[in-house]
Amino acid sequence: MSEGKQDAGSSTSELVLRADDLEDFCRGAAFLGTGGGGSPYLGRLLAERIMAEGKTVDIISVDEVPDDALVIPTAGMGAPTIGIEKLQRGDETSIALRRLEDHLGQKAFATMPVEMGGANSVTPLIVGAQLGLPVINADGMGRAFPELQMVSFSIYGISTSPFTMTNEYGECVVIEARSNKSAEGLARVICVQMGGMAHMGIYPMTGAEVKRVAVRDTMSLGLEIGRTIRRAREASTDPFEALTAYLRTTEYYSHCEVIFDGKIADVLRETSRGFALGRAIMEGTGASRGTLEVTFQNEYLVARIDGKTRAIVPDLVCICDRETAEPITTDGLRYGQRVRVMAVSAPPILRTPEALEIVGPPNFGIDEKFRPLEELA
Amino acid sequence: MSEGKQDAGSSTSELVLRADDLEDFCRGAAFLGTGGGGSPYLGRLLAERIMAEGKTVDIISVDEVPDDALVIPTAGMGAPTIGIEKLQRGDETSIALRRLEDHLGQKAFATMPVEMGGANSVTPLIVGAQLGLPVINADGMGRAFPELQMVSFSIYGISTSPFTMTNEYGECVVIEARSNKSAEGLARVICVQMGGMAHMGIYPMTGAEVKRVAVRDTMSLGLEIGRTIRRAREASTDPFEALTAYLRTTEYYSHCEVIFDGKIADVLRETSRGFALGRAIMEGTGASRGTLEVTFQNEYLVARIDGKTRAIVPDLVCICDRETAEPITTDGLRYGQRVRVMAVSAPPILRTPEALEIVGPPNFGIDEKFRPLEELA
Repeated sequence: MSEGKQDAGSSTSELVLRADDLEDFCRGAAFLGTGGGGSPYLGRLLAERIMAEGKTVDIISVDEVPDDALVIPTAGMGAPTIGIEKLQRGDETSIALRRLEDHLGQKAFATMPVEMGGANSVTPLIVGAQLGLPVINADGMGRAFPELQMVSFSIYGISTSPFTMTNEYGECVVIEARSNKSAEGLARVICVQMGGMAHMGIYPMTGAEVKRVAVRDTMSLGLEIGRTIRRAREASTDPFEALTAYLRTTEYYSHCEVIFDGKIADVLRETSRGFALGRAIMEGTGASRGTLEVTFQNEYLVARIDGKTRAIVPDLVCICDRETAEPITTDGLRYGQRVRVMAVSAPPILRTPEALEIVGPPNFGIDEKFRPLEELA
Repeated sequence: MSEGKQDAGSSTSELVLRADDLEDFCRGAAFLGTGGGGSPYLGRLLAERIMAEGKTVDIISVDEVPDDALVIPTAGMGAPTIGIEKLQRGDETSIALRRLEDHLGQKAFATMPVEMGGANSVTPLIVGAQLGLPVINADGMGRAFPELQMVSFSIYGISTSPFTMTNEYGECVVIEARSNKSAEGLARVICVQMGGMAHMGIYPMTGAEVKRVAVRDTMSLGLEIGRTIRRAREASTDPFEALTAYLRTTEYYSHCEVIFDGKIADVLRETSRGFALGRAIMEGTGASRGTLEVTFQNEYLVARIDGKTRAIVPDLVCICDRETAEPITTDGLRYGQRVRVMAVSAPPILRTPEALEIVGPPNFGIDEKFRPLEELA
């Protein structure tokens, strides 16, 4: 039982996450991260180190958060290609949260993820374990996105500011931006200057606001996705079939299918403006014919088979190992890898007109209107 | 009499600056600014607007500051070419000081300039007038330099951090950097992202530290330089002769001479990385023969006549109108202008080995050792 649970005064938490759960959780979160959200391997290593001492983290439901409580979401920022080369000290994000508390003159009741993804879903767990704070079973995307303002918090009116950024040298920046778009601009250049990777306490909000704007139950969803894949492997059954069957039972992710089975023929990438940008080309093998092209900006954005769009952001494009269904992040793409590509519907909160203004294809430089994958099939 | 004077409990201030003094003061500060330090015209306009209501600012000597008092220097940052296009709201720097006070949890006793220059010498006067704080008769350069760490404060061990940056949209960033060089890197990208111009409360220090590290009496020096030029004009005598005669009586700037008399033949410039970079070519007329080239990074850095160095940073290279001796900032250089170029020795505090590590020619990409102008003659 974490200290946070006692501090929070909650008698039951929705879920207690143990060190044993981390591998499953990181796998599931990386699946939802659609190629981004940080390295699931690094995230897990860090969390395992901290939870090795028997520490657990209470995952509480959105409804358990008092309306007037302060919630400080935590996350890392930067190109995953950099995150993997630049090791953390381990307490950067906890310091970012504490510094934002200092700035606000108020203690946080809980933290929560901003996005799902290998590292960014785990970051709040590390903070929770280090500071004894519960983590809310929710996030701001139900997937990962490359920019700060691309989050349900922002779409539905919460300010990024004030927010803090820290790095492994103990540097700290407190930012009050005039808009979430301006916050992204400032944070991005600061992140690059800080070495390409920074750690944040951001989007401080009340419990009432969390209830209004968060994508609910995504932490337990990530854990369940990871478990489903592992159990299918252990039972020597097809993990993609198991995963598809599970997702169809969920409220948000019920449209899903394997859209391609193939081999990576080419990967073009660059790290630019603090992002991992590029595209991957796959040639069909097995059940698939033709060529699939997936473009990415930290996350996979659009999947086109022989030029025909099959899934487009904010819907999820997930590239996984063909046999094990292990999710592959953009920096893990390699020539010759055999992969299956899954498309999954985004949570409805990301498909509204106001959401598409911020996370629709034009925001990623894609000159195409969003169409739900169930219409593109 | 300003409120600050009463707050400070000082019965006499060294100098009371009135609106009438601003034109002289800005001219002299711009001369010391060696082409940078912001537009003397804009600085004056802003200060005049604030002091028009009869407000005055107390200029106090370094020795009047109690050892344990908090001093927060204030300045603007950015390429002067941008400063002149992007008008201030007027209270940005006062807000930057107040926000740094908030962050430190302590009130400032006084402010002071970081550098001499048309705008950056006036900025603390505006803050002093707006907040009722005295301004210390000193700065950190006795001239202007393009980067944050190029200041006696930094050379002699004072940290930039914590420091604040604000802009005309009310945005604020509080920065704690691990070194003054890192502070410059962070501040520069933030400045560019904030629109190319930002306002700062920076290098917070105690009165005892001010006494140890500041370049003394430069505010009154700026005023006296401006007055000397004006009086020579009014008396129809040569302002360069008057200025040279005056500077030779000062403690720090006693080596000085007009090194060139000519006409601007070419100006190459770009605004890059947040700096005004370039060079100016002058052809000799009147008393001078040959070609003078002056390179600049916000400030004039080195003057070479037919390839032979005549003055080099940290010594001052000042380009002035040939007739009026009005100082010309880099953004004011125009083809065909008739100018005289003066070289002036830097204060001894900038010529020490530890100072040359930070403000010597290699720090500006100039592959040449510093030699005092009195040896180059």
